This record gives sequence, structure tokens and C-alpha cells, in this order.
Amino acid sequence: MSDNQNKSSNLDGDLLALDRLRNMGRHMVEQIEHGEGPAFETVVRSKGNVIFDEEGGFLRLGEKRERRKFLNLSQSKSFMQTLAVAAKTKKFIEEDLHTSIRGLYYQLKFTLGEDLDENLFDEQSESNALIEDLEAALGVKREDLHLTTDRKGVLAGPIVIKDHFAGEDVFIDGRKQGRSGWAIPSDVDNDMEIVELDAKYVLVVEKDAMWQRLNEDRFWQKEKAILITPKGQSSRGVRRLIRKLADKGLPIYVFTDCDAWGWYIYWTIKTGSMNLAYLGRDFSVPEAKFVGVTMSDIEHYDFLKKLTIKAKDVDIKRAQDMINYPWIKKHAEWERELKMVLKTKKKLEQDALQGPRLTFVGEYLREKIGKGEFLP
Amino acid sequence: MSDNQNKSSNLDGDLLALDRLRNMGRHMVEQIEHGEGPAFETVVRSKGNVIFDEEGGFLRLGEKRERRKFLNLSQSKSFMQTLAVAAKTKKFIEEDLHTSIRGLYYQLKFTLGEDLDENLFDEQSESNALIEDLEAALGVKREDLHLTTDRKGVLAGPIVIKDHFAGEDVFIDGRKQGRSGWAIPSDVDNDMEIVELDAKYVLVVEKDAMWQRLNEDRFWQKEKAILITPKGQSSRGVRRLIRKLADKGLPIYVFTDCDAWGWYIYWTIKTGSMNLAYLGRDFSVPEAKFVGVTMSDIEHYDFLKKLTIKAKDVDIKRAQDMINYPWIKKHAEWERELKMVLKTKKKLEQDALQGPRLTFVGEYLREKIGKGEFLP
Repeated sequence: MSDNQNKSSNLDGDLLALDRLRNMGRHMVEQIEHGEGPAFETVVRSKGNVIFDEEGGFLRLGEKRERRKFLNLSQSKSFMQTLAVAAKTKKFIEEDLHTSIRGLYYQLKFTLGEDLDENLFDEQSESNALIEDLEAALGVKREDLHLTTDRKGVLAGPIVIKDHFAGEDVFIDGRKQGRSGWAIPSDVDNDMEIVELDAKYVLVVEKDAMWQRLNEDRFWQKEKAILITPKGQSSRGVRRLIRKLADKGLPIYVFTDCDAWGWYIYWTIKTGSMNLAYLGRDFSVPEAKFVGVTMSDIEHYDFLKKLTIKAKDVDIKRAQDMINYPWIKKHAEWERELKMVLKTKKKLEQDALQGPRLTFVGEYLREKIGKGEFLP
Repeated sequence: MSDNQNKSSNLDGDLLALDRLRNMGRHMVEQIEHGEGPAFETVVRSKGNVIFDEEGGFLRLGEKRERRKFLNLSQSKSFMQTLAVAAKTKKFIEEDLHTSIRGLYYQLKFTLGEDLDENLFDEQSESNALIEDLEAALGVKREDLHLTTDRKGVLAGPIVIKDHFAGEDVFIDGRKQGRSGWAIPSDVDNDMEIVELDAKYVLVVEKDAMWQRLNEDRFWQKEKAILITPKGQSSRGVRRLIRKLADKGLPIYVFTDCDAWGWYIYWTIKTGSMNLAYLGRDFSVPEAKFVGVTMSDIEHYDFLKKLTIKAKDVDIKRAQDMINYPWIKKHAEWERELKMVLKTKKKLEQDALQGPRLTFVGEYLREKIGKGEFLP
């Protein structure tokens, strides 16, 4: 298991990163002094090295490691680029300033000029691979390298967060965020601390519209719950925050559509995803449970039958894929759910719970959570 | 001009909406009592009725109106659906509860059952047309009808907002939002009030990553500015909030990429867009000025030359479209900018201003705003 996956959460990830960046540099200087070509070691991140950790219940990388060498024609370019990224991010930490991957690209372009391929640093492209190399090699998160990532998702509830930012402490009270909620940042570790927490559980709601509905009902107050929406698939910040709240001992309940996309959102929170398996336990929450909506809900709430809608091709395809994942297949309840969708070609949205009355969604959640009716 | 476009901002848009919904219903009952088929009148929203209001400087609908009749075979179905929407939203206002278009769809489906076409209420589809009919016919916004819309965008700066929400007042201090900023809600009118404002201007920054950079520099504090990012194209809430801040007398400066998408974001804020022309002045800010990035910046900041990147086909195409809009063409500075892009096939991103040092972006903005170097 890589250092990254073993590392426990800490408040000074950026200082750890700085330390490891320095060691990496020192090590390469030593290699050169010893007449060796400089190299660094990293964990293999390809699918072949992705493992479902049975004991832990999350996706992680296996033991395969690889060396990236400067004196290797096919690796030389990306080796240099990784080092340039390392040098820049070291500077960012020392300056105590943050930027995005795009900002990093322009800093490198300013230094290296025309030689730098712009496609390399589009957020969707190979630049991620460079950053991931560095994360895996150093055993730190990109947020620790002072790289901001896409942020999405909001929170409300009985929690107070101390945000030490740009030289000032501010205290965010999750009960005083009105209609907006607190926008969950990309880095929830460095210079950030949960200073008060008076909740019984965390409820993660797929859609912002449903979050707004529950927020208006003051669901978080009545239930003493932390109410989070990732607004669809979870950002890194949201996944990290849920992990931290689980580490505080709070149960995590996830509420999504009953369709393949909703389940994907759930399973990414719970076990992590194949692509981001290198992040390991720090970004997964195996303790998470699925509160709904389920096809089986139809048996209990009769009116839902007429509120199902036609599943799309993408839903069917994803359900077929997921049913074969061993970590899903082993749960009979999940297999049953997925098979119901494949058989009926129907789906059910969380929004449907507003059918009889807008406030019904809260009643449904209270009932299911109260009775402990979850899928694993 | 429709009532909607004439209407001045008010804190009780939902009460106004309720009043107008009741009148609409009463009027139809009268029509029936007089032996007429019920009908309602709305403004024609097709492109042929979109006008650029020269005096006001924004896109709006012209004078063409049309009647939607129940006793007209081709209109009967959508007439009924519009009435069903009217009845439901009236109930939402009376209950003082909010939901999304999707929530509305399930309320209708619960009542009407299988007859309701689900595609009609996908957010991207014709459902918008039904809601827009109602907005235009009643002269109110959908937010006044207690329909929440997609929200996006954050704010920081010297402003205090009172949010009366779900029975409680909370005060949002834009100086105390840390790294996150205040998430701008979909409705910034009803039960919401700016109670303190100590700013010299508003800076709208296209990208969240750049907003985060400027927030970390405490740009809003040093400059006494309200710092807003729409995170790309502006949501309705963001456009409405900028309009309200302009109405408080603050200059509005917009900072986007120097590419067709960036300009589109700017022009949507300034004049509104063709599709949403029915919203008129309430959602446009003709006073807005463009601070950058511009192709002409290269003449002043020499290093930017090597930080330009290749324009994409979509940039070129949009630049070609925009150069022909009369309200853009009339500004020689804009024509020059667009022509430079078409000629060089290059673009410039706001992120490039981090090239020499991460904090340069703030220096650039201070200099340009200080000297008043804007495009109209």
C-alpha cells in the first residue's frame, strides 16, 4: 500500500508535502552525485493495479511500483515536466499561495515558453497524470501542493468550522447559512478545523434542488443532521469532508435517485472510483449506507408506482456494468435492485417524493432512517 | 413592453405573483360566465419579437402579444398544462414552500397520473416554455412563483445581506466567508435584503479558480470591491444580484477570458441574451464595463504575447457571429478585439495573468481599473 493510502489525516498536509518535495530533490541530487541518472519511484496507477480492499471496503492501488527515469528516452519529457511541476508547487507552498492547474500551466509556460504543450495542461487531459504521479510519489494530495480543484457542493447543519484563510480566522456556523448553505471548498484539511459538531448523522443528497427543499424544511435542525449535497458526482473536497465527518463517528447516509447515475454517485462516495483509486481511504467512506430511493420503496409507498419513469439507455448500460463489480455483486440487496431496473426498464427519481406534498421527502427520510432501512 | 420588463424590483415578488395568479383565474371564470372560451394573453417570445432597446441598452421583447385559447385544438393541451402549473405554483406560494421544475412535474404527475409526458418537464425541454408563458403573462419571475432554479456563483466583499429564510433571519457578512465565499442563491429578491454595503465597485470574474486566487489575495478588502464569480455563464440569481448592485449605484466591471465564450458571458450580463430577452432589464446590466483580458493588453504587457494560445473552432465561429450583432458592432473597440482574434486565431485566458507571479492578476486589475481602461 502506498504512503498516500496509509497516511492519516493531518492539518498540515502542505508542510508534509514541502518536506517530501525537498527530500525528493535532495535524493535526485544524491543520485547525480553518485553518477546515476535521476529517477523517482511511484505507484502504478493503471487499472491492473487497482484492488478492492476487502478488509477496508474501498478501492486502492496494489503493490506495483515503477521508476520514472530521466535517462530513458520515452520518459525523459514527462520526467522533466513532473520535476517542473514539483518545483513550482514547492514555491507555491513556500509563498503560501494557491492556484489551479491552469495557473500552474501559465507559470510553467512563462518560464519554459513555447515549448510547453498547452493540451498537456487542459484540466481534462494528461496534466492530471503528471499531478497524480506527484501525489502518488510523494504520498500527498494535490490540495497539499496548493493546487485548488473544482469545487461544488454545499452544507448546512449543526457544525462550526474554523477556516484560517489568508491570515484571518473565520467561523462558519452551518446553522446560519440561510437559503445558500456553506460552499464546500476544494481543500478541507489545511488550516481548517471542525470546532463544534452536534449532529447525529450526515445526510448526503444527490441533487441541489432536493437539498434546498430539505433545507427549507429545516430538516437538519429537526433531525440534528449535517445536510450535504455534492450537486451530482462528488468533488474531491466533498468526498474528503464526508470522510472526515465519518472519522468523527457520524453515520453517513446517502440519498440519490434510483438509477445507475445515482448509484454511481453512492458507490464513489463509499468505495472510491477506479480512476481515483490512488487516493485510497482518505477519499472513500466504506461506512456509508444507502437510504434511498429504491425500487423496493414502491412496495411500501404505493403512490410511487405511478411516479416511475422510463430508464435511459445509459442507465441500463451502467446497471449492467455495476452488477458485475464484485464489491456490489456480493450484496444481495444491491443485486436485487439493479435487476429490478434491468427487468422493468424503469427508474425512480428522488424528486418524485415531492409528489403527494412538497414536505413528504422529509417524512420519507425520517421514517427510513428511524427504522434503519438502508442498503449496504 | 410587457409588465415584466417594466416592473421595478420589489421585496414581495411572490405576493405580487399570488395576486396576479388569482386575477388570472378570476378573469377566466368571468370569460366562462360570459359564454366565452377561456384564454390568456402573453407576449410573443420568438426571435422575431426580440428587440435591442437602444435607449436602455438591453435585449427585450417587442409589442407583439398572442392569446392562448382553451378552445383551440392546437393550443388546448399546453393551455391546460399552463393552468395546472399556475394552480400548483399558487399553492406553493400560499404554503410558503419552494421547489424545482422537477418537483413541480412530480406534483402534477401525482395529480394527473400517466397522462403527463415526462419529457415535457425535463429541465432542458419544453417545460421552460410553459413557465416562460406564465412569467410573461403574469409579469413576474419564476422565482416569484416559488420555483427554484439552478444556482451557481459565489461572492465575497464588504456587504451584509439579510436572508429571511424558513422563519429565521440570518445575516451573511461577505467579509467573513473565508475560502468559500457566499453561495449566490437562485432567488435574491424575495425575503432578502442588502443591509450594509461599503464597496466602490463590483468585479465579476469568469472563473472560480481566478476568484479563489483574488479572494486569497483579499482583493475585495484592499479594493473595497464586491468580488463575484458566476463560474462561467451567469445563473439567473447572479444576473439578478448584479442588477441589484448596479441599482445601488456601484460600477460593474467584468473580467473574463479574451475569447468568444468570455465575451458571451460579458454580453449576457450586459444586455441579456436572445433566449431570455423576455426577462428584460431586471436581468441585464447595460452599465457593465469590460476590464479584460483583451488582445490589446499584449501591447502593454509584453510577456502576454508568449502566453496566448490557439483559438478553437468554436471561438472563431462565435466571434464571427458576435461581430455582426448591431449592439456589438457599433462599438469600434469591440469590433477591433473580435477582428484581432479572427485574424490571429489566438486567444488569451485570464489565468495567463498568473504567469510572472500568482499575485500579478490583482496588480493588473488594480492598474486597469485605476486608469479606467475599459471596453464598453
